[in-house]
Amino acid sequence: MAIEAARLSPSLAAAAILGRRGAPPAALPLRRALPLLLPPRRRRLCFLAAAGGDGRAVALPSSELRKRRGGASSSSSAAPGGGEDEKLRSLRRLLARPDVAIDAYIVPSQDAHQSEFIAECFMRRAYLTGFTGSAGTAVVTKDKAALWTDGRYFLQAEKELSHDWTLMRSGNQGVPTTSEWLNEVLPSGCRVGIDPFLFSFDAAEELKDAISEKNHELVLIKDLNLVDEIWGESRPEPPKEQTRVHGIKYAGVDVPSKLSFVRSQLAENGCNAVVISLLDEVAWLLNMRGSDVPNSPVFYSYLIVEDTAATLFVDNNKVSEDVLEHLEKAGVKLKPYEAILSDVERLAENGAKLWLDSSSINAAIVNVFRSSCERYVKKRGKAGRQIGKESSQGDPATGSSGVQNGTVNALYKVSPATLAKAVKNEAEVEGMKSSHLRDAAALAEFWCWLEGQVRESVPLTEVQVAEKLLEFRQKQDGFIDTSFDTISGYGANGAIIHYRPTPESCSSVGSDNLFLLDSGAQYIDGTTDITRTVHFGEPTPRQKECFTRVLQGHIALDQAVFPERTPGFVLDVLARSSLWKIGLDYRHGTGHGVGAALNVHEGPQSISYRYGNLTALQKGMIVSNEPGYYEDNSFGIRIENLLLVKEVNLPNSFGGVSYLGFEKLTFVPIQSKLVDLSLLSPSEINWINEYHDEVWEKVSPLLSGHSLDWLRKNTRPL
Amino acid sequence: MAIEAARLSPSLAAAAILGRRGAPPAALPLRRALPLLLPPRRRRLCFLAAAGGDGRAVALPSSELRKRRGGASSSSSAAPGGGEDEKLRSLRRLLARPDVAIDAYIVPSQDAHQSEFIAECFMRRAYLTGFTGSAGTAVVTKDKAALWTDGRYFLQAEKELSHDWTLMRSGNQGVPTTSEWLNEVLPSGCRVGIDPFLFSFDAAEELKDAISEKNHELVLIKDLNLVDEIWGESRPEPPKEQTRVHGIKYAGVDVPSKLSFVRSQLAENGCNAVVISLLDEVAWLLNMRGSDVPNSPVFYSYLIVEDTAATLFVDNNKVSEDVLEHLEKAGVKLKPYEAILSDVERLAENGAKLWLDSSSINAAIVNVFRSSCERYVKKRGKAGRQIGKESSQGDPATGSSGVQNGTVNALYKVSPATLAKAVKNEAEVEGMKSSHLRDAAALAEFWCWLEGQVRESVPLTEVQVAEKLLEFRQKQDGFIDTSFDTISGYGANGAIIHYRPTPESCSSVGSDNLFLLDSGAQYIDGTTDITRTVHFGEPTPRQKECFTRVLQGHIALDQAVFPERTPGFVLDVLARSSLWKIGLDYRHGTGHGVGAALNVHEGPQSISYRYGNLTALQKGMIVSNEPGYYEDNSFGIRIENLLLVKEVNLPNSFGGVSYLGFEKLTFVPIQSKLVDLSLLSPSEINWINEYHDEVWEKVSPLLSGHSLDWLRKNTRPL
Repeated sequence: MAIEAARLSPSLAAAAILGRRGAPPAALPLRRALPLLLPPRRRRLCFLAAAGGDGRAVALPSSELRKRRGGASSSSSAAPGGGEDEKLRSLRRLLARPDVAIDAYIVPSQDAHQSEFIAECFMRRAYLTGFTGSAGTAVVTKDKAALWTDGRYFLQAEKELSHDWTLMRSGNQGVPTTSEWLNEVLPSGCRVGIDPFLFSFDAAEELKDAISEKNHELVLIKDLNLVDEIWGESRPEPPKEQTRVHGIKYAGVDVPSKLSFVRSQLAENGCNAVVISLLDEVAWLLNMRGSDVPNSPVFYSYLIVEDTAATLFVDNNKVSEDVLEHLEKAGVKLKPYEAILSDVERLAENGAKLWLDSSSINAAIVNVFRSSCERYVKKRGKAGRQIGKESSQGDPATGSSGVQNGTVNALYKVSPATLAKAVKNEAEVEGMKSSHLRDAAALAEFWCWLEGQVRESVPLTEVQVAEKLLEFRQKQDGFIDTSFDTISGYGANGAIIHYRPTPESCSSVGSDNLFLLDSGAQYIDGTTDITRTVHFGEPTPRQKECFTRVLQGHIALDQAVFPERTPGFVLDVLARSSLWKIGLDYRHGTGHGVGAALNVHEGPQSISYRYGNLTALQKGMIVSNEPGYYEDNSFGIRIENLLLVKEVNLPNSFGGVSYLGFEKLTFVPIQSKLVDLSLLSPSEINWINEYHDEVWEKVSPLLSGHSLDWLRKNTRPL
Repeated sequence: MAIEAARLSPSLAAAAILGRRGAPPAALPLRRALPLLLPPRRRRLCFLAAAGGDGRAVALPSSELRKRRGGASSSSSAAPGGGEDEKLRSLRRLLARPDVAIDAYIVPSQDAHQSEFIAECFMRRAYLTGFTGSAGTAVVTKDKAALWTDGRYFLQAEKELSHDWTLMRSGNQGVPTTSEWLNEVLPSGCRVGIDPFLFSFDAAEELKDAISEKNHELVLIKDLNLVDEIWGESRPEPPKEQTRVHGIKYAGVDVPSKLSFVRSQLAENGCNAVVISLLDEVAWLLNMRGSDVPNSPVFYSYLIVEDTAATLFVDNNKVSEDVLEHLEKAGVKLKPYEAILSDVERLAENGAKLWLDSSSINAAIVNVFRSSCERYVKKRGKAGRQIGKESSQGDPATGSSGVQNGTVNALYKVSPATLAKAVKNEAEVEGMKSSHLRDAAALAEFWCWLEGQVRESVPLTEVQVAEKLLEFRQKQDGFIDTSFDTISGYGANGAIIHYRPTPESCSSVGSDNLFLLDSGAQYIDGTTDITRTVHFGEPTPRQKECFTRVLQGHIALDQAVFPERTPGFVLDVLARSSLWKIGLDYRHGTGHGVGAALNVHEGPQSISYRYGNLTALQKGMIVSNEPGYYEDNSFGIRIENLLLVKEVNLPNSFGGVSYLGFEKLTFVPIQSKLVDLSLLSPSEINWINEYHDEVWEKVSPLLSGHSLDWLRKNTRPL
C-alpha cells in the first residue's frame, strides 16, 4: 500500500512526507537553495475510514465494515439536504454558551492517538460535515463553516457537503490554511477552540503560534467535545472489543524485557517516566493485540512506564483473565482509560521528569503535565524548596522541540518504543515470513481464479474482486483482517493512487486495460501489503514500456546494497531513475515501514523523495518497495513487495562498517506479459527468473490443482 | 580534482562537506535519527599552498612556485631547531603589550577572502609554526602553543613543528577543538584575540559563543596582525600583479548587465548595497581576471555595488589603462583596497541597508558596519529621529544566520553573485568546451609520451611526470596556469587522496602498479579538471574489478536524467552503488562545481553523500563526476570528467517539469585495459564505445603523429 504521501496531492504531500511516524518536515536552517524547502507542517493526516452510519461500534472485522461503508455515506454522516443545518445550528449555540464562549471551533479527523484508522465514535468531522473522506478539517465560526481537504477528495466533498459548507481545496493556489483563514475571517482577538485530545502537542503549539498573529487565543476545551455534545445519544459507543495476548512465539521478546529496555532508556535520559500514546506502541510493548479499529490490531489505551511501575490505561472490560494474568506477571497495573490525565498530574506532583513524544502525545496530556508542574513549583517555592532544576533544555541533539520547557520537568523526544518496534526480532521476522507465504498462496489462488473469470467473460466489479480476494485470504490460517481497504483499480481507476471502489461507482474488471490491486492482511503472526498490476488481454507497447520501467526501479531498489547509517531517502532515486530516463515519475514515496502483526504503516524509517527523514535503515526493519507510474485517465501501475533489511556478507567491508541489503518477504509472480524484454539488462532478466524460481519453491507446496498450474505457468523463466 | 571533503579525514570532512562555497552543514532541527547529524561547523578549510621561502610575492606562475615549494619548507617557515622559539617569544611579548593585552591569539590559515589558494604574505600560520600543510590553526597562549591539523598532515606536522608546539590531531578521539582547548587551559574570563579579517563573521560568532562558556572575551584586533608584526621586514609584499579584462567573448555578459542584475536583487531584497568579498565573485561580476594567487585567476579586492554606484577596492597599481577604461564604462569607481572599512562606515552612516553574506564576509567588515550603525542610531536618536526600522529580522527563508540583526540595517544572505556565477551563459559554455578540447589534446600528447617513456624504462618521478604534463599544456593556446597542484600518485601514493609529490620523497612511475593523475589548467577561456588512472603493465584482477566498479559509478552518474529541482546529493548514490555492491566506497564527494576561467572549486552546487546542500542542479551549471576507490598502501583509482548540466528532450514530461541530464566536457580516453568486461552490461559497454568515438571525433583533429596513433589505439571499440 502506498505510503500516505502517495495519497496526497503534491502540495499536501509535504505534510505527510515522512509517513505517520516520521519526523516533522521542519524547515532546515540551511542558507542555500531554500526555494526547495516546503513550509514546516506538523499536521498529521490520518486515514479515517468512512463513517458506518448505524451508530454501532466498529467491533466488526473491517471486511464487514467495508461492505457496510460501501453501502452509502448514510445517516450518521449527513447527506446534502439532510439535518446538517441543525448540526451547525446546535454547534453554534454551543460556541455561544457562557461556559464555552468561543468564536470558532476546529474539528480535525484525528482520534486522541494520531491513529491511521479510527473508531466510528471518533469520526466527528465526518458526522458534523457529512464529508466521509479520510482526510479533512472542519472549522466553524458564528457565521461560517469551512472544510479543508486535498485533491483526492474534491469531487467527493463537493457531493457530500451541504450548501452551508465552503469547500477549501487544500493545495490549490490561493487557498489559505485553516489558521490563515481564521486570521482572515475573524476580527482581531478572538477565541478559537479545540479539543486538545485531538491535536498533538506540536500541532496545537503550531496552531497557537499561527493564530496569535491576529491576537487570537487558542482555547483548549478538554472536558467537552462539542461535536459529541450535539451527536448525543446517536453517537456510537466507544469500541469495547476484547484484547488478547500476542503470544511470545510471535512477539519474540517478553514484556518484562521490553519494559526493562524502556527503563534503561529512561535512566539514560534522566527521566522517571514516559507516556506512550501511540496504540501500536502500547500493543507492541505489552505484547497485546485488540480490534478496536479496522485494519490495525490495536486497542484504545495509554501506557505509562515508570522507574519501578507500569500502568495500562484501558477500559477494564477489554481485559480478560488471561490478559490480566499476562499483565500482572509483567508488573503492569490497570487503570481506567480516562484516568490518564489524573495520573499525569500525580507524576507532576511527585516531581517526576516525564518523557513526552510531543509529535504524537496529545495537547491535553502535555498541558495537564505542564500546568501541574507549574502549580507544584509554586507550591514548593512557597515551602522554600527548589525543584525543576533538572528540567530539560531545548536541545537539538535530543530531538527536543521548540517548546518552552525550561519551566517543566519534561523531555520532548521521540518515544523510546519507536525505533525498538521498527527493528524486528527473530520471532517477528519468522512470523512475517510465514504469514507472507500463506498470503502468497491466497493470492495465487485468487489470481488463478480471476484470470479464469475474466477469460470466461464473467462480469465482475472491482469491489467483487476485492471481496473474493478476502475470501481466499480468510481461508488461510491465522487470518484476522485486511491491513487496509483494498485498492482495486481497473483501467483509469488504477491511475487514482488512493482509489477505493464503491459498489455503486466502480468499474468492471476486464481484459482491455491494466488492473492494479493493492491489498494486505493482518494475520496472527504478521502483516502483509502487496501490489500487483496485470493485464488479462493484450497490453499496449506504452503500457509495457511503463510497466518495465517501474519494474526496473523495483529491481534496482530490491538489489541495493548500502553501508549502515544510510537513510532511506538515499535509495529512493534507484527506484525512479529508470522512469526519469523517459521523463516519467510518480508522486508518492517508494517505501514505508510495516509492523509485525501491527500497523501496515509505521515509522520511523521511510524511502522517499523527500529528504527530511534522516532515519537510517537498520537490520531488522521492514520496508515496502513500491514504485509506480500513473497515467491520468488511462491506467495505473505499481509493483510492491515487502523487504526485510538484512546484513549482507560481502568480500570487502570498506571503512569497517556493515553493509546492508534486502531480503524479499513477498512471493507472488510478476506478470511476464507486461515486461518489455528489450529494455532489460541480462542481470534484470536474471533477477526476475530468480525471483520466480523462489516463488515457485516457496509457494508451490501450499497449492494444488489449478492454482498450482497457474503458479507453474507464471513462474516460468523469461 | 576531488572536492575538499575528499581531502579530509572522515571526521573533519563534516566541516567541508559542501565544498568551500556550500551551505554550512547546520544541525537540522529534525527530531529523529539525530545520530546521523554531525555537529555544525562553519570553519572553512582553505588550501594554503606551502610557503615559498624567499620573501617574494607570488607573482610567478604556480608551476614555478610549485617547483620552489618542492625544494624545501625553508627559511620563512621555521624548521625544527630554527628560530621558532624567537617567534613565539616575540608573539608572547606582543600578547602582553598594554595596547594588546590578550591571553591567547588564534592564527588560522585563511586570508581575508576565504580563498582556497592564498598569497604568500598571508601564510601567517605557516610562518609562525613552521608547519606548511594547507590546513591548520595555531593557538598561542602565554605558556602554550598548539597547532590543529587533520589526518592528512599528522606526519608532516610532526616533522615540521618544533618541540615548543603541541600537535592537536583533529578528528582523533579525545582531541578538543580550539575553543574547547581554550576553555580548558585558560582560567575563566580571559581575553582571546583574533585578526577579524581572517575569520568569516559566522566563524567569529561561533567562536565567540563557544568561548563565552568560560566567560572568555573574543577580542578583535583589526589594526594589527600580530604575526605580521613579528614577521616584520622579511614578510613578503602583497601581490601586485596586473589585472586584465576578461573579454566579452569569454564572459558572455557585460559588466553593466551583471551589475543591473545585482541591483535588481538589491531592490527585491530591500537593500541599498552589497559587499562582495569572494575574489572569484568580484572577478566574475567585473569581467576581470588577475594572478595574485596560484591556480585561480583572481586578484585581491572587494566590490561594493550600490543602487546607483559600484566601487572596486583594489591596489591602484594593478589596474592598467585598459582595465580602468573597462571599469569606467561600467560605472565602476576605484578605491584603495584598504578603504573598504571606511566605505562600509560611510554606508552605515548614510543609513544604507547592507546585504552581507556572513558565511564569507570577514568579521572585520561586518563588525565595522554594525558598530557604525549603532553609533549612527545613537546620534540620530539624540537628534530625535528614528532609523533602522527597516532592519532585517532573522528569517530562515532568506538564509539569515543566527545573528542579532535586529539592531542593524543588514540582510545576512548568500551573495547574489553565487548562483548567477554558477549558471554559465553560452559564451562561458563555449569557452569551457573549447578549452577542454585543447586540454584533451595536451593530455593525449602527454599520455602518449608517458606510455613511451615507461615502455622504454626511462626513470621518471611523479614530479617529473607532472612537470612534463605542464609542458604539454603550456603549448596549448590560451594556457595560463594549472588550476590546482597536480596530484600525481603512483601505486600506494595514489591511495592518498590529497597526495602532493615532492621531488625528495616521490616515487618513480613504473609499470607494476596503477598511476593516478588528477590535474587541471586555467586557460583564457576556461578551467579544466580531469583525473585518469592507468596501468602501464599488467593490472591485477583486483585492480580491474575496482576500476570497473568505479567506472560503472562514473557511467551511472554521467547518464543520469532527473527532474529539475533535484539537489546534487540525490544523484550521489548512483556513483557509489556499484562499489557498495562489493562492500567498497570512497571517502569524498562525487562532484563539485567548477568556474568558467575561474576557480576550480565553486559552489553552490555539489554532488555528495552529505545531505546538507539542497541546491538544485540547474541547466548551465558545471560539475565534476569523480568517483574513486582507494586501497590503503596499495593503489588509488579515480575517474573524473567535467559535466555540463543541460536540459534533455524526452518523450514525456511528467508533472510538466523539465528533465535535466549531463553533457560531457572532458574528452580523454579511459584505459580499456583496466576494464573487466564481464562486469559490464551491454549499455555500459556501449557508453564507453560511444564516449571513445566522441573523443576521437573531437580531439583527433588537434593531433598528429604518435599522439594521433595513440588516440586511435585508445579509442578503439571494446
